[in-house]
Amino acid sequence: MSQTLAEIAAALGARLEGDGTLLVAGAAEPAMAGPEHLALAMDPKYAAGLSKGKARAAVLWEGADWAGMGLQAAIFVARPRYAMAGITRALDPGPEIAPGIHPLAVVDPSARIGEGAAIGPFVTIGRAVRIGRGARIAARVSIEAETVIGVDALILSGVWIGPRVVIGDRFICHPNAVIGSDGFSFVTPEKSGAEEIRETLGQRGEIRPQSWTRIHSIGNVEIGDDVEIGATATIDRGTIRATKIGSGTKLDNQVHLGHNVEVGRDCLLCGQTGIAGSARIGDRVVMGGQTGVVDNVFVGDDVIAGAGTKIMSNAPKGRVLLGYPAIKMESQIANWKHIRRLGRMNDQLAELREIVSESRQGAAAKNDESYSDDDEG
Amino acid sequence: MSQTLAEIAAALGARLEGDGTLLVAGAAEPAMAGPEHLALAMDPKYAAGLSKGKARAAVLWEGADWAGMGLQAAIFVARPRYAMAGITRALDPGPEIAPGIHPLAVVDPSARIGEGAAIGPFVTIGRAVRIGRGARIAARVSIEAETVIGVDALILSGVWIGPRVVIGDRFICHPNAVIGSDGFSFVTPEKSGAEEIRETLGQRGEIRPQSWTRIHSIGNVEIGDDVEIGATATIDRGTIRATKIGSGTKLDNQVHLGHNVEVGRDCLLCGQTGIAGSARIGDRVVMGGQTGVVDNVFVGDDVIAGAGTKIMSNAPKGRVLLGYPAIKMESQIANWKHIRRLGRMNDQLAELREIVSESRQGAAAKNDESYSDDDEG
Amino acid sequence: MSQTLAEIAAALGARLEGDGTLLVAGAAEPAMAGPEHLALAMDPKYAAGLSKGKARAAVLWEGADWAGMGLQAAIFVARPRYAMAGITRALDPGPEIAPGIHPLAVVDPSARIGEGAAIGPFVTIGRAVRIGRGARIAARVSIEAETVIGVDALILSGVWIGPRVVIGDRFICHPNAVIGSDGFSFVTPEKSGAEEIRETLGQRGEIRPQSWTRIHSIGNVEIGDDVEIGATATIDRGTIRATKIGSGTKLDNQVHLGHNVEVGRDCLLCGQTGIAGSARIGDRVVMGGQTGVVDNVFVGDDVIAGAGTKIMSNAPKGRVLLGYPAIKMESQIANWKHIRRLGRMNDQLAELREIVSESRQGAAAKNDESYSDDDEG
Repeated sequence: MSQTLAEIAAALGARLEGDGTLLVAGAAEPAMAGPEHLALAMDPKYAAGLSKGKARAAVLWEGADWAGMGLQAAIFVARPRYAMAGITRALDPGPEIAPGIHPLAVVDPSARIGEGAAIGPFVTIGRAVRIGRGARIAARVSIEAETVIGVDALILSGVWIGPRVVIGDRFICHPNAVIGSDGFSFVTPEKSGAEEIRETLGQRGEIRPQSWTRIHSIGNVEIGDDVEIGATATIDRGTIRATKIGSGTKLDNQVHLGHNVEVGRDCLLCGQTGIAGSARIGDRVVMGGQTGVVDNVFVGDDVIAGAGTKIMSNAPKGRVLLGYPAIKMESQIANWKHIRRLGRMNDQLAELREIVSESRQGAAAKNDESYSDDDEG
Repeated sequence: MSQTLAEIAAALGARLEGDGTLLVAGAAEPAMAGPEHLALAMDPKYAAGLSKGKARAAVLWEGADWAGMGLQAAIFVARPRYAMAGITRALDPGPEIAPGIHPLAVVDPSARIGEGAAIGPFVTIGRAVRIGRGARIAARVSIEAETVIGVDALILSGVWIGPRVVIGDRFICHPNAVIGSDGFSFVTPEKSGAEEIRETLGQRGEIRPQSWTRIHSIGNVEIGDDVEIGATATIDRGTIRATKIGSGTKLDNQVHLGHNVEVGRDCLLCGQTGIAGSARIGDRVVMGGQTGVVDNVFVGDDVIAGAGTKIMSNAPKGRVLLGYPAIKMESQIANWKHIRRLGRMNDQLAELREIVSESRQGAAAKNDESYSDDDEG
Repeated sequence: MSQTLAEIAAALGARLEGDGTLLVAGAAEPAMAGPEHLALAMDPKYAAGLSKGKARAAVLWEGADWAGMGLQAAIFVARPRYAMAGITRALDPGPEIAPGIHPLAVVDPSARIGEGAAIGPFVTIGRAVRIGRGARIAARVSIEAETVIGVDALILSGVWIGPRVVIGDRFICHPNAVIGSDGFSFVTPEKSGAEEIRETLGQRGEIRPQSWTRIHSIGNVEIGDDVEIGATATIDRGTIRATKIGSGTKLDNQVHLGHNVEVGRDCLLCGQTGIAGSARIGDRVVMGGQTGVVDNVFVGDDVIAGAGTKIMSNAPKGRVLLGYPAIKMESQIANWKHIRRLGRMNDQLAELREIVSESRQGAAAKNDESYSDDDEG
């Protein structure tokens, strides 16, 4: 998948100097780059690496002397991290899914598949499914009855999309993700112990045997445009209403959304994050890896949670959270420092107690002396 | 899947008032309900929503004036949460799996499949597998040699059930779950560093290179009746004996059970909970999302663990746990309050130390004066 | 899969006493063993169990009186845990995958499959894939274009291996694992809130709307020899360079490795552990279940992390870690003890404050008296 430097520069909207007809077949770190690579050296610290590698072209920081570095061409970018998006998009060969519907796919005759679809073997597509034009669906995907997916979807192997799910345009779904599974919702005829301690924060009455009756999930999942779902992520459908994911939101691998959860627009939920049933997450929320959110709470717009945070109560908009339980990040960092000092605090407290106790005994002894003096006097 | 109000009321064992012949095709929240929906308004707080929606029938709280609300019929229930089980069961259309064995399923001739089975395409069923009557097995499921499953199983796409697994009746398994994978069990010729620090709680002797030899898992998995396993959950088989899950127990999405784990009856393990090898969990245990249990510990009957709890030692029956490491929930909540006050405690301690130090210096100064007086005297 | 005791003893390199021609068909715990089983009783505490079971042969601790226990033969081992590796390997029947390539597998004509392969139905193997001799690939596996796998691989159902992945010899991969998925890497045109608070540890400037642009993953995954990957584990490929796993390393179920992560040789990462993007893990590192490592940190050789540990900064080689955030295990255990005593510390501090305050008031009162005396004098 070779491209000219001029094509890449145009795709990035970036300035090119030197030979724009030079072809590159991939990108590499400067020291690892061969003559076929575009070296990524957007910071002066990579200059040394460039001289070790064999690249003839590079993406460089503004002002770099590309000719002096022995390069034949260079592209100049302002925000290197953002430039990575364009560079990698230009050089990504994408998955290889043969055009058309594979003869070993099982597509219900009532399903409507848009133009230009590429659907791999061992795929099943159910009754009344509608998929927009340009869909790329890899081997071994199942899409259940009445589900609707927008244009230009990319759905990789092993994905299961349940019934009645509604998904917008440009959906990307990574291998073995599950969208629209039943919620985890069970109930006991009498109030359960878990319901009880939720009210009392830990106090229990008599413990009775209890077994669980299933609440079925007859709701669905609604997903906006430009959403991406990670490998083996799981999204339960709603009980009555929909589990919702807003446009522009990205879920990493192994993220779990419980039934009725609503996640807003342009959120990033990093790996192994779990959101329990009926929690609502605002727009542009960012959660680090292994974050947890308990059921039925509300997390406001623009909240950022550090890795491992457990959000156990409502979080106001814009709050930066960390820890278990989640509190403001700066308070948590202060608390963690205090905890590291607890041994010393403990020693200081013990020492103080001894001093004060001695001084009281001393005072008491004096007083006793006085009193005995008095008594004797 | 329309039903009459009378049918639904009968399924719930609940009282019906009004026109029992009215048909509903689904349930909805009151404000979202159309004329085809049964509105769920089991609390007076939903009364306002009802007037916004277009429902002709509703499930209501006892004593509600259904006719005054403009409804044509109403069902009355006592415990709304429990009623949800019956309502959703009545209205769940269930998965669409065509009856019979799909021609693109690969079923070993020695397998015995009970009457009334519906088995989808791309399924593999191994040697000597036995599956009870009424099984619904969706596309892309694999069931390995000698596994036995009871009646009325529902197994969704992408599930893998390993060899020699024994499963009871009415089993429900969600997409991409893995049951009966090899345990994670490795050993070094000499005692490993991990074994050493487990004994010493952190102290290490000389660090030696070590590489791992595999302990194979030749045990199996035994699962009772009425068990449900969530999407992408993983259950390892035992090393020699069985990994066990008791009847009535439900595992949520992304739950992991290690080898030799035994979980009792009627437990609920919420999303992303992990139980390490050889841990034993009693009956009716409820674990919130992202709970962890270390290997080889015992968690007693009726224990409840809040979200994110890490159980690192045995837990007596009935105990309510929270935190990392797990302690009694009420103690944990108290500790978390104390931690939040650590900054203040620290300041108070510093202040006290200063006061006491000054007062001792003052006293010492006085004593010094006396002494110097003495000396000078 | 019956074997003689002599064969098993030879496989273990262990001493046999008694009838080496005795056949066993499996292993069992002493009390559960039937006459066809090899009882595993490598510690005197199992002697009682042996007399309850019906085993005719056992693996015993050195010096045990096998004849006196009514056994017909016994194998003696030194390190029981290590012996388990050999015993279970000898008795593991392994997965049943028919030799040859199943007619319902879709193998690209350009793929090169080594001799002796067993490839199940519904497998897809892409363009220019190369797989070494002796591969066992179960049903429903996908291997994407240009991926190279060494000899004697065992890949179980539902696994997806992405494009351009390079894997060594004797690879074992459990069901539904995903190797080589896209990294979770998104960028905003302007600096994002998450980038900002990472620099300030929690302080934010003005909050602006932001949406995410995708950085594509054009790197790959490189995996050494003798690596094992657990069920539903997920490993993202690198952005430009490779995500790497060293030889001899084992990943448990539901482990997640982000893009560009490098894990060294002979590591064990237990269930549900997550390593965020670009983190580097040394050799022989052991992480307990649900461990987390934040992005871009370095964890040195021989580090051991207890269950639930969240590693949020670099960890020097040989360090034993525990807790959230990770600190030295012995410090963490001490801190947890201090935290449990916080209620008492708080009471003691309050009591001290009262005493000191009273004593100051007393002193002040005395001083006030003196002064008033003075004033009056």
